[in-house]
Amino acid sequence: VINELKANDRGFTLGDGLFETIAVRNAQPLHLQHHLHRLRMGLNILRFEFETSDARITAAIHTTIESHRMTDAVVRLTLTRGPAPRGVLPSAASRPNMLITVSPWNVIPDTVRVILAQTTRRNEASPLSRIKSLNYLDSVLARMEAADAGADDAILLNTRDHLAEASAANLFVLLQGQWFTPPVHDGALPGIARALLIERAGVAERSLTPNDLLQAEAAFLSNSLGLREILCVDDRKLISRQPDRIDEFRQILR
Amino acid sequence: VINELKANDRGFTLGDGLFETIAVRNAQPLHLQHHLHRLRMGLNILRFEFETSDARITAAIHTTIESHRMTDAVVRLTLTRGPAPRGVLPSAASRPNMLITVSPWNVIPDTVRVILAQTTRRNEASPLSRIKSLNYLDSVLARMEAADAGADDAILLNTRDHLAEASAANLFVLLQGQWFTPPVHDGALPGIARALLIERAGVAERSLTPNDLLQAEAAFLSNSLGLREILCVDDRKLISRQPDRIDEFRQILR
Repeated sequence: VINELKANDRGFTLGDGLFETIAVRNAQPLHLQHHLHRLRMGLNILRFEFETSDARITAAIHTTIESHRMTDAVVRLTLTRGPAPRGVLPSAASRPNMLITVSPWNVIPDTVRVILAQTTRRNEASPLSRIKSLNYLDSVLARMEAADAGADDAILLNTRDHLAEASAANLFVLLQGQWFTPPVHDGALPGIARALLIERAGVAERSLTPNDLLQAEAAFLSNSLGLREILCVDDRKLISRQPDRIDEFRQILR
Repeated sequence: VINELKANDRGFTLGDGLFETIAVRNAQPLHLQHHLHRLRMGLNILRFEFETSDARITAAIHTTIESHRMTDAVVRLTLTRGPAPRGVLPSAASRPNMLITVSPWNVIPDTVRVILAQTTRRNEASPLSRIKSLNYLDSVLARMEAADAGADDAILLNTRDHLAEASAANLFVLLQGQWFTPPVHDGALPGIARALLIERAGVAERSLTPNDLLQAEAAFLSNSLGLREILCVDDRKLISRQPDRIDEFRQILR
């Protein structure tokens, strides 16, 4: 675990990096292969030359968990393009930096109150919407707006008025008995839990509007740390709820 | 000058910060009041509580320049929200971090070959397009695309097919004898040189299309480090050039 980094690391100067947030249960990182696969996709889009194998990353994560003697925890894996002189264009000489940090596990509430973010929108026209990069400020703005409104999270629209995702979680909406989640081309991050729910629980991808969410029979947010059922949107209560069905989804992800 | 920062600084973990790039000539930072004004606007949008006065920031910049004994240089002022536990929502306990770094002055070429970026677009629907934040990856992607095409820089479109700016510079286009630059609501960063050219040189704001650029009588890029005339766009040479007029603009900014 590196605790300090250089002030000229491009991860810091330009947000030129990627991260993964991985749940740890009983000292085991969950869905690690999926996280490493997404990380590789991000490395590809950002064109980082990172030669460390998945096996070595996995070993480093296990060593970190063991050295902190944690059973339930959250591991964050951060990869930056590394230190470089001033300038936007990456230097061929940059060598990526990997940081692994561990935080205590915090209990995730079962429910969440959301708003529709007004201050900013997710840029579905950028490849960054498909990777988990260090450019997280739109989510920070949306979360501050949610906190101002007394809500727990905010749903971001994309630039075409479709729902994209929450500040750090994918969105799922039940409409006429079928669960839907926004497609990646609408600005949804390809979440790990999202992929598993599409694969194993029959969730379908479809563009969704604010009206779809307001008229949903139920809705929830997912990320690698858990599922939270949506109670209300902009202070309007959802018509009905499906806590049992969402518990089933939780089991599927375990 | 701080050379190391904590791995849990939000500037690093989420790109939660701002910066300014300031030209130094004869040991004097140029247009410093304008830079500090823009920094304050950014602090406002990101809601950083930063109590250090402009006078103290100015003194710190001068001390840094003097301690490096540099006459011509580039100062970068970076402000982050500071160290914090995991999570998207800023903690009230965070205290901002200021870093001042100095790089040698590199001669800016007088001309530039550009492409129209295809890989990504600037998000004019986000307040981040109006501030100089650490979320710089769209520009990094566009610059890598330019380098692949053998060009020096890339012009980014916004999500409505209007021209926004280059990877780290504003765009100026001469059409029927009048100079235009994209408006801020099209995703142009409110650049310091841009503001001075609007104020002192009669440049007007107007939405511009790729066709406007291809048919321009002349065009250039500006940022705080200099002006570069555009020679060609996607290998198509501009119809004419105005190097003398652009030299006059350089004088105005001195």
